Amino acid sequence: MGTESADPALAARVADSFRDAPDERLRTVLASLVTHLHAFVGEVRPTLAEWEAAIGFLTATGQACTDTRQEFILLSDVLGVSTLVEAVNSRPGGTESTVLGPFHVVASPPRANGDSIDLVGRGEPCLVTGVVRGADGVPLPGASVDVWQCDQDGFYDVQVPDAQPAGNGRGLFTTDADGRFRFRTVVPSHYPIPTDGPVGQLLRATGRHPYRPAHIHLIGAAQGHLPVTTHVFVAGGPYLDSDAVFAVKPSLVREFTRVDDPDRAAEAGLPSPFWYVEFDIVLCGA
Amino acid sequence: MGTESADPALAARVADSFRDAPDERLRTVLASLVTHLHAFVGEVRPTLAEWEAAIGFLTATGQACTDTRQEFILLSDVLGVSTLVEAVNSRPGGTESTVLGPFHVVASPPRANGDSIDLVGRGEPCLVTGVVRGADGVPLPGASVDVWQCDQDGFYDVQVPDAQPAGNGRGLFTTDADGRFRFRTVVPSHYPIPTDGPVGQLLRATGRHPYRPAHIHLIGAAQGHLPVTTHVFVAGGPYLDSDAVFAVKPSLVREFTRVDDPDRAAEAGLPSPFWYVEFDIVLCGA
Repeated sequence: MGTESADPALAARVADSFRDAPDERLRTVLASLVTHLHAFVGEVRPTLAEWEAAIGFLTATGQACTDTRQEFILLSDVLGVSTLVEAVNSRPGGTESTVLGPFHVVASPPRANGDSIDLVGRGEPCLVTGVVRGADGVPLPGASVDVWQCDQDGFYDVQVPDAQPAGNGRGLFTTDADGRFRFRTVVPSHYPIPTDGPVGQLLRATGRHPYRPAHIHLIGAAQGHLPVTTHVFVAGGPYLDSDAVFAVKPSLVREFTRVDDPDRAAEAGLPSPFWYVEFDIVLCGA
Repeated sequence: MGTESADPALAARVADSFRDAPDERLRTVLASLVTHLHAFVGEVRPTLAEWEAAIGFLTATGQACTDTRQEFILLSDVLGVSTLVEAVNSRPGGTESTVLGPFHVVASPPRANGDSIDLVGRGEPCLVTGVVRGADGVPLPGASVDVWQCDQDGFYDVQVPDAQPAGNGRGLFTTDADGRFRFRTVVPSHYPIPTDGPVGQLLRATGRHPYRPAHIHLIGAAQGHLPVTTHVFVAGGPYLDSDAVFAVKPSLVREFTRVDDPDRAAEAGLPSPFWYVEFDIVLCGA
Protein backbone atom coordinates (compact mmCIF):
# COMPACT_ATOMS: atom_id res chain seq x y z
CA MET A 1 0.00 0.00 0.00
CA GLY A 2 1.26 3.45 -0.83
CA THR A 3 0.30 6.74 0.73
CA GLU A 4 0.76 8.77 -2.44
CA SER A 5 -2.26 9.89 -4.39
CA ALA A 6 -2.20 9.52 -8.17
CA ASP A 7 -2.30 13.34 -8.16
CA PRO A 8 -0.54 14.61 -5.01
CA ALA A 9 -0.98 18.25 -6.07
CA LEU A 10 -4.75 17.78 -6.16
CA ALA A 11 -4.77 16.11 -2.73
CA ALA A 12 -2.72 19.01 -1.37
CA ARG A 13 -5.11 21.59 -2.88
CA VAL A 14 -8.12 19.83 -1.36
CA ALA A 15 -6.49 19.53 2.06
CA ASP A 16 -5.50 23.20 1.82
CA SER A 17 -9.10 24.21 1.04
CA PHE A 18 -9.89 23.44 4.69
CA ARG A 19 -7.12 25.75 5.99
CA ASP A 20 -9.61 28.34 7.30
CA ALA A 21 -11.73 25.88 9.30
CA PRO A 22 -12.03 27.50 12.72
CA ASP A 23 -12.09 24.11 14.49
CA GLU A 24 -8.54 22.76 14.55
CA ARG A 25 -9.68 19.19 15.24
CA LEU A 26 -12.01 19.25 12.21
CA ARG A 27 -9.13 20.58 10.10
CA THR A 28 -6.89 17.74 11.28
CA VAL A 29 -9.52 15.06 10.64
CA LEU A 30 -10.35 16.39 7.16
CA ALA A 31 -6.71 16.71 6.15
CA SER A 32 -6.17 13.07 7.18
CA LEU A 33 -9.38 11.97 5.44
CA VAL A 34 -8.38 13.67 2.19
CA THR A 35 -4.90 12.15 2.28
CA HIS A 36 -6.10 8.60 2.92
CA LEU A 37 -9.11 8.83 0.60
CA HIS A 38 -6.99 10.11 -2.29
CA ALA A 39 -4.37 7.43 -1.57
CA PHE A 40 -7.11 4.76 -1.73
CA VAL A 41 -8.57 6.13 -4.97
CA GLY A 42 -5.09 6.53 -6.45
CA GLU A 43 -4.27 2.93 -5.55
CA VAL A 44 -7.38 1.20 -6.88
CA ARG A 45 -7.90 3.63 -9.80
CA PRO A 46 -11.65 3.01 -10.03
CA THR A 47 -13.35 3.11 -13.40
CA LEU A 48 -16.18 5.60 -13.72
CA ALA A 49 -18.63 2.70 -13.51
CA GLU A 50 -16.99 1.54 -10.26
CA TRP A 51 -17.14 5.07 -8.84
CA GLU A 52 -20.83 5.25 -9.77
CA ALA A 53 -21.39 1.87 -8.10
CA ALA A 54 -19.68 3.18 -4.94
CA ILE A 55 -21.84 6.32 -4.96
CA GLY A 56 -24.91 4.13 -5.44
CA PHE A 57 -23.88 1.82 -2.60
CA LEU A 58 -23.31 4.68 -0.15
CA THR A 59 -26.59 6.32 -1.17
CA ALA A 60 -28.53 3.08 -0.69
CA THR A 61 -26.83 2.58 2.69
CA GLY A 62 -28.01 6.01 3.85
CA GLN A 63 -31.48 5.45 2.50
CA ALA A 64 -31.79 2.08 4.27
CA CYS A 65 -31.53 3.88 7.62
CA THR A 66 -34.71 4.44 9.61
CA ASP A 67 -35.57 5.29 13.19
CA THR A 68 -34.94 1.66 14.12
CA ARG A 69 -32.25 0.65 11.64
CA GLN A 70 -28.74 2.04 11.18
CA GLU A 71 -27.19 0.58 8.03
CA PHE A 72 -24.10 2.84 8.18
CA ILE A 73 -23.26 1.50 11.65
CA LEU A 74 -23.71 -1.97 10.19
CA LEU A 75 -21.28 -1.07 7.39
CA SER A 76 -18.81 0.31 9.92
CA ASP A 77 -19.24 -2.95 11.84
CA VAL A 78 -18.60 -5.38 8.96
CA LEU A 79 -15.51 -3.40 7.92
CA GLY A 80 -14.07 -3.68 11.43
CA VAL A 81 -14.14 0.10 11.85
CA SER A 82 -16.47 0.03 14.85
CA THR A 83 -14.20 -2.40 16.65
CA LEU A 84 -11.18 -0.23 15.80
CA VAL A 85 -12.90 2.92 17.10
CA GLU A 86 -13.71 1.08 20.32
CA ALA A 87 -10.09 -0.06 20.54
CA VAL A 88 -8.58 3.41 20.18
CA ASN A 89 -10.96 4.68 22.86
CA SER A 90 -10.43 1.91 25.36
CA ARG A 91 -8.10 2.16 28.30
CA PRO A 92 -6.21 -0.75 29.78
CA GLY A 93 -7.30 -1.97 33.18
CA GLY A 94 -11.06 -1.98 32.62
CA THR A 95 -13.47 -4.42 31.00
CA GLU A 96 -12.67 -4.61 27.30
CA SER A 97 -15.05 -2.65 25.12
CA THR A 98 -16.65 -3.82 21.92
CA VAL A 99 -19.03 -2.48 19.30
CA LEU A 100 -22.28 -0.69 20.01
CA GLY A 101 -23.93 -2.37 17.04
CA PRO A 102 -26.94 -1.10 15.11
CA PHE A 103 -29.68 -2.07 17.60
CA HIS A 104 -29.13 0.47 20.36
CA VAL A 105 -31.59 2.72 18.54
CA VAL A 106 -34.20 3.05 21.30
CA ALA A 107 -33.72 3.92 24.97
CA SER A 108 -33.78 0.94 27.32
CA PRO A 109 -36.66 1.10 29.82
CA PRO A 110 -35.49 1.63 33.43
CA ARG A 111 -36.03 -1.56 35.45
CA ALA A 112 -35.41 -2.69 39.02
CA ASN A 113 -32.75 -5.25 39.93
CA GLY A 114 -34.17 -8.73 39.53
CA ASP A 115 -36.73 -7.65 36.93
CA SER A 116 -37.11 -9.65 33.76
CA ILE A 117 -36.32 -8.11 30.37
CA ASP A 118 -38.13 -11.06 28.76
CA LEU A 119 -41.66 -9.84 28.09
CA VAL A 120 -42.58 -12.81 25.89
CA GLY A 121 -41.91 -15.93 27.96
CA ARG A 122 -40.41 -18.28 25.39
CA GLY A 123 -36.80 -19.42 25.27
CA GLU A 124 -34.45 -20.76 27.91
CA PRO A 125 -34.75 -18.80 31.18
CA CYS A 126 -31.54 -17.18 32.35
CA LEU A 127 -30.27 -15.15 35.28
CA VAL A 128 -27.55 -12.56 34.59
CA THR A 129 -25.72 -10.87 37.42
CA GLY A 130 -22.47 -9.09 38.10
CA VAL A 131 -20.75 -6.34 40.02
CA VAL A 132 -19.64 -3.01 38.60
CA ARG A 133 -16.27 -2.07 40.08
CA GLY A 134 -13.68 0.61 39.68
CA ALA A 135 -10.21 -0.33 38.45
CA ASP A 136 -9.20 -0.49 42.14
CA GLY A 137 -11.65 -3.34 42.64
CA VAL A 138 -14.06 -1.33 44.78
CA PRO A 139 -17.75 -1.98 43.92
CA LEU A 140 -19.67 0.99 42.55
CA PRO A 141 -23.22 1.40 43.93
CA GLY A 142 -25.57 3.49 41.78
CA ALA A 143 -23.78 2.62 38.52
CA SER A 144 -26.00 2.19 35.46
CA VAL A 145 -26.00 -0.96 33.36
CA ASP A 146 -27.84 -0.61 30.06
CA VAL A 147 -28.52 -4.04 28.54
CA TRP A 148 -30.08 -5.15 25.26
CA GLN A 149 -30.17 -8.51 23.52
CA CYS A 150 -31.95 -10.59 20.92
CA ASP A 151 -34.37 -13.35 21.82
CA GLN A 152 -34.03 -17.13 21.51
CA ASP A 153 -34.65 -16.83 17.75
CA GLY A 154 -32.05 -14.13 17.17
CA PHE A 155 -34.36 -11.12 16.81
CA TYR A 156 -34.30 -7.75 18.57
CA ASP A 157 -37.62 -6.13 19.46
CA VAL A 158 -37.23 -3.36 16.85
CA GLN A 159 -36.80 -5.95 14.09
CA VAL A 160 -40.07 -7.76 14.75
CA PRO A 161 -42.49 -5.24 16.30
CA ASP A 162 -45.41 -7.60 15.60
CA ALA A 163 -43.83 -10.48 17.53
CA GLN A 164 -42.14 -8.65 20.43
CA PRO A 165 -43.43 -5.74 22.52
CA ALA A 166 -41.23 -2.61 22.46
CA GLY A 167 -38.58 -2.87 25.17
CA ASN A 168 -38.41 -6.66 25.07
CA GLY A 169 -34.82 -7.72 25.72
CA ARG A 170 -33.90 -4.25 27.00
CA GLY A 171 -33.41 -2.77 30.43
CA LEU A 172 -31.60 0.03 32.21
CA PHE A 173 -30.49 -1.19 35.63
CA THR A 174 -28.86 0.53 38.58
CA THR A 175 -26.41 -1.31 40.82
CA ASP A 176 -27.38 -1.83 44.44
CA ALA A 177 -25.43 -0.93 47.57
CA ASP A 178 -22.99 -3.74 46.82
CA GLY A 179 -22.44 -2.58 43.22
CA ARG A 180 -24.45 -5.55 41.94
CA PHE A 181 -26.90 -5.69 39.01
CA ARG A 182 -29.19 -8.64 38.34
CA PHE A 183 -31.83 -9.38 35.72
CA ARG A 184 -33.82 -12.25 34.32
CA THR A 185 -33.90 -12.91 30.59
CA VAL A 186 -33.66 -15.71 28.02
CA VAL A 187 -30.42 -17.14 26.64
CA PRO A 188 -29.75 -15.14 23.45
CA SER A 189 -29.20 -16.89 20.14
CA HIS A 190 -26.53 -16.33 17.55
CA TYR A 191 -28.14 -14.46 14.65
CA PRO A 192 -27.50 -12.98 11.24
CA ILE A 193 -27.08 -9.22 10.98
CA PRO A 194 -29.76 -7.76 8.69
CA THR A 195 -29.02 -8.93 5.15
CA ASP A 196 -31.88 -7.31 3.23
CA GLY A 197 -29.96 -4.06 2.67
CA PRO A 198 -26.74 -2.90 0.98
CA VAL A 199 -24.52 -4.43 3.68
CA GLY A 200 -26.18 -7.80 3.09
CA GLN A 201 -25.47 -7.39 -0.63
CA LEU A 202 -21.82 -6.73 0.19
CA LEU A 203 -21.57 -9.87 2.34
CA ARG A 204 -23.24 -12.02 -0.34
CA ALA A 205 -21.04 -10.60 -3.09
CA THR A 206 -17.94 -11.44 -1.07
CA GLY A 207 -18.94 -14.86 0.23
CA ARG A 208 -19.04 -13.76 3.87
CA HIS A 209 -21.56 -15.19 6.32
CA PRO A 210 -23.67 -12.67 8.27
CA TYR A 211 -23.67 -14.37 11.67
CA ARG A 212 -22.81 -13.01 15.07
CA PRO A 213 -22.15 -15.35 18.01
CA ALA A 214 -24.72 -15.19 20.84
CA HIS A 215 -24.21 -12.25 23.20
CA ILE A 216 -25.83 -9.70 25.49
CA HIS A 217 -24.94 -6.02 25.02
CA LEU A 218 -24.05 -3.96 28.09
CA ILE A 219 -23.06 -0.34 28.65
CA GLY A 220 -21.66 0.17 32.14
CA ALA A 221 -21.41 3.74 33.44
CA ALA A 222 -20.74 5.40 36.78
CA GLN A 223 -19.94 8.90 37.92
CA GLY A 224 -16.24 9.71 37.82
CA HIS A 225 -15.55 6.78 35.47
CA LEU A 226 -15.32 6.21 31.73
CA PRO A 227 -18.36 4.31 30.44
CA VAL A 228 -17.71 1.01 28.68
CA THR A 229 -19.74 -0.43 25.79
CA THR A 230 -19.28 -4.18 25.74
CA HIS A 231 -20.83 -7.65 25.28
CA VAL A 232 -20.90 -10.87 27.23
CA PHE A 233 -20.60 -13.77 24.76
CA VAL A 234 -22.03 -17.25 25.35
CA ALA A 235 -19.11 -19.69 25.55
CA GLY A 236 -19.26 -22.71 23.27
CA GLY A 237 -21.68 -21.22 20.72
CA PRO A 238 -21.11 -21.05 16.96
CA TYR A 239 -19.36 -18.13 15.18
CA LEU A 240 -17.19 -17.10 18.13
CA ASP A 241 -14.21 -17.38 15.78
CA SER A 242 -15.78 -15.61 12.79
CA ASP A 243 -18.07 -12.86 14.13
CA ALA A 244 -19.39 -10.87 11.14
CA VAL A 245 -18.55 -7.64 12.96
CA PHE A 246 -15.16 -8.61 14.50
CA ALA A 247 -16.33 -7.87 18.04
CA VAL A 248 -15.31 -11.01 19.95
CA LYS A 249 -12.61 -10.65 22.57
CA PRO A 250 -11.65 -13.71 24.61
CA SER A 251 -11.97 -11.76 27.87
CA LEU A 252 -15.69 -11.23 27.18
CA VAL A 253 -16.67 -14.90 26.71
CA ARG A 254 -18.43 -16.54 29.70
CA GLU A 255 -19.89 -19.96 30.44
CA PHE A 256 -23.66 -19.91 30.81
CA THR A 257 -24.14 -22.73 33.35
CA ARG A 258 -27.26 -24.83 33.68
CA VAL A 259 -28.71 -24.74 37.22
CA ASP A 260 -31.04 -27.60 38.12
CA ASP A 261 -31.98 -26.51 41.64
CA PRO A 262 -35.62 -25.65 42.48
CA ASP A 263 -34.58 -23.57 45.49
CA ARG A 264 -32.21 -21.36 43.52
CA ALA A 265 -34.78 -21.13 40.73
CA ALA A 266 -37.46 -19.97 43.17
CA GLU A 267 -35.04 -17.45 44.64
CA ALA A 268 -34.31 -16.07 41.18
CA GLY A 269 -37.98 -16.05 40.20
CA LEU A 270 -37.33 -18.46 37.34
CA PRO A 271 -38.55 -21.97 36.45
CA SER A 272 -36.13 -24.81 37.06
CA PRO A 273 -33.81 -25.57 35.39
CA PHE A 274 -32.43 -22.19 34.33
CA TRP A 275 -29.18 -20.81 33.01
CA TYR A 276 -26.84 -18.60 34.98
CA VAL A 277 -24.03 -16.27 34.03
CA GLU A 278 -21.94 -13.87 36.03
CA PHE A 279 -20.25 -10.92 34.29
CA ASP A 280 -18.49 -8.20 36.27
CA ILE A 281 -17.80 -4.83 34.69
CA VAL A 282 -14.65 -2.90 35.60
CA LEU A 283 -14.65 0.84 34.80
CA CYS A 284 -11.54 3.00 34.46
CA GLY A 285 -11.42 6.38 36.13
CA ALA A 286 -12.44 9.36 33.97
CA MET B 1 0.74 10.18 7.45
CA GLY B 2 1.28 6.54 8.33
CA THR B 3 -0.14 3.50 6.65
CA GLU B 4 -0.31 1.43 9.81
CA SER B 5 -3.60 0.90 11.57
CA ALA B 6 -3.71 1.28 15.34
CA ASP B 7 -4.51 -2.46 15.30
CA PRO B 8 -2.82 -4.06 12.27
CA ALA B 9 -3.98 -7.54 13.29
CA LEU B 10 -7.61 -6.39 13.13
CA ALA B 11 -7.10 -4.75 9.71
CA ALA B 12 -5.54 -7.99 8.48
CA ARG B 13 -8.45 -10.07 9.82
CA VAL B 14 -10.99 -7.79 8.12
CA ALA B 15 -9.12 -7.82 4.81
CA ASP B 16 -8.84 -11.60 5.09
CA SER B 17 -12.60 -11.91 5.63
CA PHE B 18 -13.01 -11.03 1.95
CA ARG B 19 -10.64 -13.82 0.81
CA ASP B 20 -13.47 -15.92 -0.68
CA ALA B 21 -14.98 -13.13 -2.78
CA PRO B 22 -15.33 -14.69 -6.24
CA ASP B 23 -14.67 -11.35 -7.98
CA GLU B 24 -10.94 -10.68 -7.81
CA ARG B 25 -11.36 -6.98 -8.54
CA LEU B 26 -13.84 -6.58 -5.68
CA ARG B 27 -11.39 -8.42 -3.41
CA THR B 28 -8.60 -6.04 -4.40
CA VAL B 29 -10.72 -2.92 -3.92
CA LEU B 30 -12.00 -4.04 -0.52
CA ALA B 31 -8.55 -5.03 0.73
CA SER B 32 -7.29 -1.57 -0.24
CA LEU B 33 -10.35 0.12 1.30
CA VAL B 34 -9.90 -1.71 4.60
CA THR B 35 -6.19 -0.87 4.75
CA HIS B 36 -6.67 2.84 4.05
CA LEU B 37 -9.81 3.19 6.16
CA HIS B 38 -8.16 1.55 9.17
CA ALA B 39 -5.05 3.70 8.65
CA PHE B 40 -7.25 6.83 8.64
CA VAL B 41 -9.14 5.78 11.77
CA GLY B 42 -5.89 4.76 13.47
CA GLU B 43 -4.37 8.14 12.64
CA VAL B 44 -7.19 10.41 13.80
CA ARG B 45 -8.31 8.13 16.67
CA PRO B 46 -11.90 9.43 16.65
CA THR B 47 -13.80 9.67 19.91
CA LEU B 48 -17.07 7.73 20.03
CA ALA B 49 -18.91 11.05 19.67
CA GLU B 50 -16.90 11.86 16.54
CA TRP B 51 -17.58 8.41 15.10
CA GLU B 52 -21.30 8.91 15.79
CA ALA B 53 -21.13 12.33 14.11
CA ALA B 54 -19.50 10.72 11.05
CA ILE B 55 -22.20 8.02 10.94
CA GLY B 56 -24.84 10.75 11.22
CA PHE B 57 -23.21 12.81 8.45
CA LEU B 58 -23.02 9.87 6.03
CA THR B 59 -26.61 8.87 6.84
CA ALA B 60 -27.88 12.42 6.24
CA THR B 61 -25.92 12.56 2.98
CA GLY B 62 -27.63 9.41 1.73
CA GLN B 63 -31.01 10.61 2.86
CA ALA B 64 -30.59 13.97 1.10
CA CYS B 65 -30.44 12.12 -2.24
CA THR B 66 -33.56 12.15 -4.42
CA ASP B 67 -34.33 11.46 -8.07
CA THR B 68 -32.98 14.90 -8.91
CA ARG B 69 -30.31 15.42 -6.27
CA GLN B 70 -27.17 13.41 -5.59
CA GLU B 71 -25.58 14.57 -2.34
CA PHE B 72 -22.94 11.78 -2.32
CA ILE B 73 -21.65 12.92 -5.72
CA LEU B 74 -21.54 16.42 -4.27
CA LEU B 75 -19.51 15.10 -1.33
CA SER B 76 -17.17 13.28 -3.71
CA ASP B 77 -16.87 16.57 -5.63
CA VAL B 78 -15.98 18.84 -2.70
CA LEU B 79 -13.37 16.32 -1.47
CA GLY B 80 -11.68 16.33 -4.89
CA VAL B 81 -12.43 12.62 -5.32
CA SER B 82 -14.53 13.09 -8.46
CA THR B 83 -11.73 15.06 -10.10
CA LEU B 84 -9.22 12.38 -9.09
CA VAL B 85 -11.40 9.59 -10.50
CA GLU B 86 -11.66 11.53 -13.77
CA ALA B 87 -7.89 11.99 -13.74
CA VAL B 88 -7.06 8.30 -13.30
CA ASN B 89 -9.45 7.47 -16.14
CA SER B 90 -8.26 10.10 -18.59
CA ARG B 91 -5.85 9.38 -21.37
CA PRO B 92 -3.38 11.90 -22.72
CA GLY B 93 -4.02 13.24 -26.18
CA GLY B 94 -7.73 13.97 -25.86
CA THR B 95 -9.76 16.80 -24.37
CA GLU B 96 -9.17 16.86 -20.62
CA SER B 97 -11.99 15.40 -18.60
CA THR B 98 -13.53 16.86 -15.52
CA VAL B 99 -16.27 16.02 -13.05
CA LEU B 100 -19.76 14.85 -13.97
CA GLY B 101 -21.27 16.82 -11.09
CA PRO B 102 -24.57 16.13 -9.36
CA PHE B 103 -26.91 17.56 -12.00
CA HIS B 104 -26.67 14.94 -14.74
CA VAL B 105 -29.61 13.20 -13.07
CA VAL B 106 -32.06 13.33 -15.99
CA ALA B 107 -31.53 12.35 -19.63
CA SER B 108 -30.90 15.28 -21.96
CA PRO B 109 -33.59 15.62 -24.64
CA PRO B 110 -32.32 14.85 -28.17
CA ARG B 111 -32.14 18.06 -30.23
CA ALA B 112 -31.11 19.04 -33.76
CA ASN B 113 -27.98 21.07 -34.46
CA GLY B 114 -28.77 24.75 -34.17
CA ASP B 115 -31.63 24.18 -31.72
CA SER B 116 -31.84 26.23 -28.58
CA ILE B 117 -31.55 24.62 -25.16
CA ASP B 118 -32.88 27.86 -23.65
CA LEU B 119 -36.62 27.33 -23.20
CA VAL B 120 -37.11 30.43 -21.06
CA GLY B 121 -35.78 33.37 -23.09
CA ARG B 122 -34.02 35.40 -20.44
CA GLY B 123 -30.27 35.86 -20.07
CA GLU B 124 -27.55 36.70 -22.55
CA PRO B 125 -28.02 34.81 -25.83
CA CYS B 126 -25.09 32.63 -26.81
CA LEU B 127 -24.04 30.38 -29.67
CA VAL B 128 -21.88 27.35 -28.81
CA THR B 129 -20.22 25.33 -31.53
CA GLY B 130 -17.33 22.96 -32.01
CA VAL B 131 -16.02 19.93 -33.84
CA VAL B 132 -15.63 16.47 -32.33
CA ARG B 133 -12.39 14.91 -33.61
CA GLY B 134 -10.36 11.81 -33.05
CA ALA B 135 -6.87 12.11 -31.61
CA ASP B 136 -5.63 12.05 -35.22
CA GLY B 137 -7.48 15.32 -35.87
CA VAL B 138 -10.08 13.74 -38.18
CA PRO B 139 -13.63 15.07 -37.54
CA LEU B 140 -16.14 12.50 -36.29
CA PRO B 141 -19.62 12.74 -37.89
CA GLY B 142 -22.42 11.13 -35.89
CA ALA B 143 -20.71 11.70 -32.53
CA SER B 144 -23.00 12.55 -29.62
CA VAL B 145 -22.56 15.67 -27.51
CA ASP B 146 -24.62 15.69 -24.33
CA VAL B 147 -24.77 19.20 -22.84
CA TRP B 148 -26.28 20.61 -19.65
CA GLN B 149 -25.86 23.94 -17.91
CA CYS B 150 -27.40 26.33 -15.43
CA ASP B 151 -29.19 29.51 -16.47
CA GLN B 152 -28.19 33.17 -16.11
CA ASP B 153 -29.09 33.01 -12.42
CA GLY B 154 -27.06 29.89 -11.69
CA PHE B 155 -29.89 27.33 -11.48
CA TYR B 156 -30.34 24.00 -13.25
CA ASP B 157 -33.84 23.00 -14.34
CA VAL B 158 -34.11 20.24 -11.71
CA GLN B 159 -33.40 22.72 -8.93
CA VAL B 160 -36.24 25.09 -9.79
CA PRO B 161 -38.98 23.04 -11.50
CA ASP B 162 -41.46 25.89 -10.98
CA ALA B 163 -39.28 28.42 -12.78
CA GLN B 164 -37.76 26.30 -15.58
CA PRO B 165 -39.43 23.66 -17.74
CA ALA B 166 -37.85 20.18 -17.56
CA GLY B 167 -35.04 19.93 -20.11
CA ASN B 168 -34.19 23.62 -19.99
CA GLY B 169 -30.44 24.00 -20.41
CA ARG B 170 -30.09 20.40 -21.63
CA GLY B 171 -29.67 18.83 -25.04
CA LEU B 172 -28.30 15.72 -26.71
CA PHE B 173 -26.78 16.70 -30.06
CA THR B 174 -25.30 14.67 -32.90
CA THR B 175 -22.42 16.00 -34.96
CA ASP B 176 -23.08 16.68 -38.66
CA ALA B 177 -21.13 15.40 -41.66
CA ASP B 178 -18.26 17.73 -40.74
CA GLY B 179 -18.16 16.52 -37.12
CA ARG B 180 -19.68 19.81 -35.96
CA PHE B 181 -22.23 20.43 -33.19
CA ARG B 182 -23.99 23.76 -32.67
CA PHE B 183 -26.59 24.98 -30.22
CA ARG B 184 -28.12 28.19 -28.92
CA THR B 185 -28.29 28.89 -25.20
CA VAL B 186 -27.69 31.61 -22.63
CA VAL B 187 -24.34 32.45 -21.04
CA PRO B 188 -24.24 30.39 -17.81
CA SER B 189 -23.57 32.04 -14.49
CA HIS B 190 -21.22 31.02 -11.71
CA TYR B 191 -23.30 29.49 -8.93
CA PRO B 192 -23.18 27.95 -5.49
CA ILE B 193 -23.47 24.17 -5.23
CA PRO B 194 -26.51 23.23 -3.11
CA THR B 195 -25.79 24.27 0.47
CA ASP B 196 -29.01 23.21 2.18
CA GLY B 197 -27.76 19.67 2.85
CA PRO B 198 -24.93 17.96 4.74
CA VAL B 199 -22.30 19.03 2.18
CA GLY B 200 -23.34 22.66 2.69
CA GLN B 201 -22.95 22.14 6.44
CA LEU B 202 -19.44 20.81 5.85
CA LEU B 203 -18.49 23.85 3.75
CA ARG B 204 -19.90 26.28 6.32
CA ALA B 205 -18.17 24.51 9.20
CA THR B 206 -14.85 24.76 7.39
CA GLY B 207 -15.13 28.29 6.04
CA ARG B 208 -15.19 27.20 2.39
CA HIS B 209 -17.26 29.06 -0.20
CA PRO B 210 -19.66 26.95 -2.29
CA TYR B 211 -19.13 28.60 -5.68
CA ARG B 212 -18.33 27.08 -9.03
CA PRO B 213 -17.08 29.23 -11.90
CA ALA B 214 -19.46 29.54 -14.89
CA HIS B 215 -19.36 26.54 -17.22
CA ILE B 216 -21.27 24.31 -19.62
CA HIS B 217 -21.09 20.52 -19.10
CA LEU B 218 -20.41 18.30 -22.12
CA ILE B 219 -20.06 14.56 -22.62
CA GLY B 220 -18.58 13.77 -26.03
CA ALA B 221 -18.90 10.20 -27.32
CA ALA B 222 -18.33 8.43 -30.61
CA GLN B 223 -18.14 4.83 -31.71
CA GLY B 224 -14.65 3.36 -31.36
CA HIS B 225 -13.58 6.13 -28.98
CA LEU B 226 -13.48 6.68 -25.23
CA PRO B 227 -16.18 9.12 -24.15
CA VAL B 228 -15.07 12.27 -22.33
CA THR B 229 -16.98 14.08 -19.57
CA THR B 230 -15.83 17.68 -19.49
CA HIS B 231 -16.75 21.37 -19.11
CA VAL B 232 -16.10 24.54 -21.05
CA PHE B 233 -15.44 27.35 -18.56
CA VAL B 234 -16.18 31.04 -19.22
CA ALA B 235 -12.84 32.90 -19.24
CA GLY B 236 -12.57 35.90 -16.94
CA GLY B 237 -15.36 34.91 -14.58
CA PRO B 238 -15.06 34.65 -10.78
CA TYR B 239 -13.99 31.49 -8.90
CA LEU B 240 -11.86 30.05 -11.72
CA ASP B 241 -9.04 29.79 -9.16
CA SER B 242 -11.11 28.37 -6.29
CA ASP B 243 -13.76 26.08 -7.79
CA ALA B 244 -15.60 24.40 -4.89
CA VAL B 245 -15.26 21.05 -6.70
CA PHE B 246 -11.65 21.35 -7.99
CA ALA B 247 -12.73 20.82 -11.60
CA VAL B 248 -11.04 23.71 -13.43
CA LYS B 249 -8.30 22.84 -15.90
CA PRO B 250 -6.70 25.67 -17.85
CA SER B 251 -7.15 23.77 -21.13
CA LEU B 252 -10.93 23.94 -20.69
CA VAL B 253 -11.26 27.73 -20.26
CA ARG B 254 -12.51 29.65 -23.34
CA GLU B 255 -13.26 33.26 -24.17
CA PHE B 256 -16.93 33.89 -24.77
CA THR B 257 -16.76 36.72 -27.34
CA ARG B 258 -19.43 39.36 -27.90
CA VAL B 259 -20.65 39.48 -31.50
CA ASP B 260 -22.37 42.72 -32.53
CA ASP B 261 -23.28 41.79 -36.11
CA PRO B 262 -26.97 41.58 -37.15
CA ASP B 263 -26.15 39.31 -40.13
CA ARG B 264 -24.33 36.73 -38.00
CA ALA B 265 -27.06 37.01 -35.38
CA ALA B 266 -29.76 36.34 -38.00
CA GLU B 267 -27.75 33.40 -39.33
CA ALA B 268 -27.50 31.95 -35.81
CA GLY B 269 -31.16 32.61 -35.06
CA LEU B 270 -30.25 34.90 -32.17
CA PRO B 271 -30.85 38.59 -31.34
CA SER B 272 -27.90 40.95 -31.81
CA PRO B 273 -25.59 41.26 -29.99
CA PHE B 274 -24.93 37.72 -28.85
CA TRP B 275 -22.05 35.76 -27.32
CA TYR B 276 -20.05 33.14 -29.16
CA VAL B 277 -17.78 30.35 -28.02
CA GLU B 278 -16.04 27.58 -29.90
CA PHE B 279 -15.03 24.40 -28.07
CA ASP B 280 -13.68 21.39 -29.92
CA ILE B 281 -13.71 17.95 -28.32
CA VAL B 282 -10.92 15.48 -29.03
CA LEU B 283 -11.65 11.82 -28.26
CA CYS B 284 -9.02 9.13 -27.74
CA GLY B 285 -9.41 5.74 -29.38
CA ALA B 286 -11.08 3.04 -27.31
